[in-house]
Amino acid sequence: MTTEQMIQKYKDWIFRQSAYQMALSLINFDKLTIAPKGGNEYRDEREAYLAGEYFAIATKKDMIPVLKALKDDENVDADTRRACELYYKNMMKDACIPKDEFIAWHALQNESYNHWLEAKQKNDYSIFEPYLKRIIEGSKKIYGFRESDIPIYDQMLDDYEPGMDREKYDRFFDALKERILPLIKQVTEAKQIEDGFLYEKFDIDGQKAFMEHLLKYLEYTPDWGYQNETEHPFTDWVCENDCRTTTKYLENNVVSAIFSTIHECGHAWYEHNIDPKYDGMILSNGVSSGMHESESRLCENYLGRTKAFWEANYPILQEQFKEQLGNVSIDEFIRAVNVAKPSLIRTEADELTYPVHILIRYEMEKGIFDGTISTEHLDEAWNAKYKEYLGVDVKDAKDGILQDVHWADGSFGYFPTYALGSAFAAQFVDQMRQEINVDEMLRTSRYGEIQKWLREKFQHYGCFYDAPDIMKLVTGKEFDPQYYIEYLENKYRGLYLSDKK
Amino acid sequence: MTTEQMIQKYKDWIFRQSAYQMALSLINFDKLTIAPKGGNEYRDEREAYLAGEYFAIATKKDMIPVLKALKDDENVDADTRRACELYYKNMMKDACIPKDEFIAWHALQNESYNHWLEAKQKNDYSIFEPYLKRIIEGSKKIYGFRESDIPIYDQMLDDYEPGMDREKYDRFFDALKERILPLIKQVTEAKQIEDGFLYEKFDIDGQKAFMEHLLKYLEYTPDWGYQNETEHPFTDWVCENDCRTTTKYLENNVVSAIFSTIHECGHAWYEHNIDPKYDGMILSNGVSSGMHESESRLCENYLGRTKAFWEANYPILQEQFKEQLGNVSIDEFIRAVNVAKPSLIRTEADELTYPVHILIRYEMEKGIFDGTISTEHLDEAWNAKYKEYLGVDVKDAKDGILQDVHWADGSFGYFPTYALGSAFAAQFVDQMRQEINVDEMLRTSRYGEIQKWLREKFQHYGCFYDAPDIMKLVTGKEFDPQYYIEYLENKYRGLYLSDKK
Repeated sequence: MTTEQMIQKYKDWIFRQSAYQMALSLINFDKLTIAPKGGNEYRDEREAYLAGEYFAIATKKDMIPVLKALKDDENVDADTRRACELYYKNMMKDACIPKDEFIAWHALQNESYNHWLEAKQKNDYSIFEPYLKRIIEGSKKIYGFRESDIPIYDQMLDDYEPGMDREKYDRFFDALKERILPLIKQVTEAKQIEDGFLYEKFDIDGQKAFMEHLLKYLEYTPDWGYQNETEHPFTDWVCENDCRTTTKYLENNVVSAIFSTIHECGHAWYEHNIDPKYDGMILSNGVSSGMHESESRLCENYLGRTKAFWEANYPILQEQFKEQLGNVSIDEFIRAVNVAKPSLIRTEADELTYPVHILIRYEMEKGIFDGTISTEHLDEAWNAKYKEYLGVDVKDAKDGILQDVHWADGSFGYFPTYALGSAFAAQFVDQMRQEINVDEMLRTSRYGEIQKWLREKFQHYGCFYDAPDIMKLVTGKEFDPQYYIEYLENKYRGLYLSDKK
Repeated sequence: MTTEQMIQKYKDWIFRQSAYQMALSLINFDKLTIAPKGGNEYRDEREAYLAGEYFAIATKKDMIPVLKALKDDENVDADTRRACELYYKNMMKDACIPKDEFIAWHALQNESYNHWLEAKQKNDYSIFEPYLKRIIEGSKKIYGFRESDIPIYDQMLDDYEPGMDREKYDRFFDALKERILPLIKQVTEAKQIEDGFLYEKFDIDGQKAFMEHLLKYLEYTPDWGYQNETEHPFTDWVCENDCRTTTKYLENNVVSAIFSTIHECGHAWYEHNIDPKYDGMILSNGVSSGMHESESRLCENYLGRTKAFWEANYPILQEQFKEQLGNVSIDEFIRAVNVAKPSLIRTEADELTYPVHILIRYEMEKGIFDGTISTEHLDEAWNAKYKEYLGVDVKDAKDGILQDVHWADGSFGYFPTYALGSAFAAQFVDQMRQEINVDEMLRTSRYGEIQKWLREKFQHYGCFYDAPDIMKLVTGKEFDPQYYIEYLENKYRGLYLSDKK
């Protein structure tokens, strides 16, 4: 085959993959948002079949020599070489899995998800436990096909965040534990900030009216973005101009939907900012889970919880909810949305205690895969860790072991990237604030200009570079968790402990 | 191959088809409801590829002998024989089309739809005209592959309503013209019924609150049904327990969303009522387009516009809109929702003038395919017919030639089934009212019992029988348009001309 023929074969191959990816993505979005539950089984069976067709294309053995040749051919353009390198890497991981095994695994993921949802709705871990057990065994089996010498959990960590393993995460979490756990203790013992006014009754229609404004402020327009509602907010995407987010409205919490929206729109913006020439190929994805989370948390916390952000938005929120917020000053509001308080639910957690929620999950996952925690007692182990690290009592499984979807479909190794993402964000923001006047942009409703910086600085590359290279490209330095730790210390000392300085 | 082997091969084949059908159905529903427009081109290209994959499976030549053998094998169960008969029939129609031509045609349908939508939004027929021309030429080409001696438009009519052709439709429409056109004239000249109160301002949130009640009354529950909003209400379905409808709220019309909902839920109920053992196979569909429309119009008009229906529902609507409807009696309301008045928009038309909207489209389609009307002047021809038959002036293309989606994707021959469906419904209802106390069920909120009658009487068969057989099975008679004509005459003479009796 000539290089031209190989490139044509490669292009046909990625187009076919992208068609199935699109279908699977839309089927997934549909299932999680609107699909009538009664059709779950019927749809899941067929979805698993289509996932199998996708898998068969993605692991087609006759592509191996093509990818190998193209990735190393200096006459081939850099984008194609990089894409082939990544496709080849995935091929090496997946082509060893028999198609039947893949479909069975995929069907189990669907089934387990449905039972997790039921268990959560019924607040009953015993409904989910047998499926979790099967999902753990299933994921061991699937990873087993790779015949790698690397322990399974380390492989999982590397899959979500290339280059990471337990040793590196242990160091990262140790640094957090050393500095953040004592800080949480001090904050918990300090004089508390008044935030009760955030938790009065705020009618959902009023929240939706504000959301219309907020989405405009975030420049998340119907041309490329769509927002729906789900119990568990998430982001999905098809291409540059098709990103989908969800949020969740709570009548007794005026900021929950707001921050989840800023967060998910941060994910959506990242995908939207990737160069459209990459649409439909592997490069059109965020670099890694941690990098993706860095962008959503950058938007949610490092932009969305600042005074400058609310100078542009608080008057409108206040106008919408005169009765509840009419007498609350912007400074009181800002302090309230930055309250740190140990709590049960990860997605609702404040910035300071958030990484501890992740630490707990990371330690649980390590225990699951080194065999020291069994599924039978996973809920008890969970509850004990929440007591130990955050001092809170888990009363309901739905607020404990069942709160997150990740284990339901076997996404082990994903959670740690959430804490890493927050830490990446701190380092990015430090650089961004040196280069552009972020606060001025937020204050004057020029959110798109901040996104422009992110796009031009690195997001447009998609995964042309690896995460560590991106960090160096943007900040000129290796990743350093101290940015994150110092950010948290400065912020929360300022908010809670300034008298003691 | 043994019979068992053939049955296994057949089962695998229909499962694969059903997986692609599900994906295509969900991609379509997504596009028409929520998908960001910016992603249209990307999605359409991939959707066309997947449609091609589906087509390749559905027309796989090695299935021809299998289907042929199974459909004629008396030892095979009746369901499989009937399904194979229908699959075989479709195979004979489609297997002659080269896959590339099918994909190109499908891509053209997508492209044409997008331009029709743009043309309608911009109220400019010239945007759509070149695509309509290509769609007409494209459909001629696609039908040309069949090498049939039957004129193309007759084949189209038969595709949507097996057994129908121009000769039969001409007879049907002639009967309508003879009796209904004079009646419309008389009604138009008679004293008009007051209905202005339906077109005051009704806030959308209030309409949605009533809709929640209405969906419960219609027993359209989230377990199997889902409702969204679109510019053009429609129904889509995946399986027994996954049906999707859409509606459209108008602030200056309190009944538009209500009747479109009852209508679309009529389609959804039909699909839901089909025996679930047929899920995923060809039998799990309504018998024909006319039969499907008979069920939606039966619900919308023969149930939804009766006094009994509103005895259960009007007090709730009145309570929701006290200001506008507080002083309107139920009798005044019923008369208002049954007003007949020549108008421009088919989907908003009353029962009496509705078939004339269809007649116009039928005559236009005949003209398109016998070459007497060109796309360049189609809008003028349209406007002239609306003036001739209904006496109304079309001022905007969006309210004229661009109002319906059907021609945008080449669904020629579909429209006539709408009038036929209304006529089928009249004959079904005549029988139903002899067997069960419909009004009592409507009045006492037992809508599900009416659906039960429909299910048990014939809907559960899916397309196990042909439409003419279904008609005989339910009513003991051949289809007879006189039921429809007499229904319309009695109803509208009673409403408008009772003084003259």
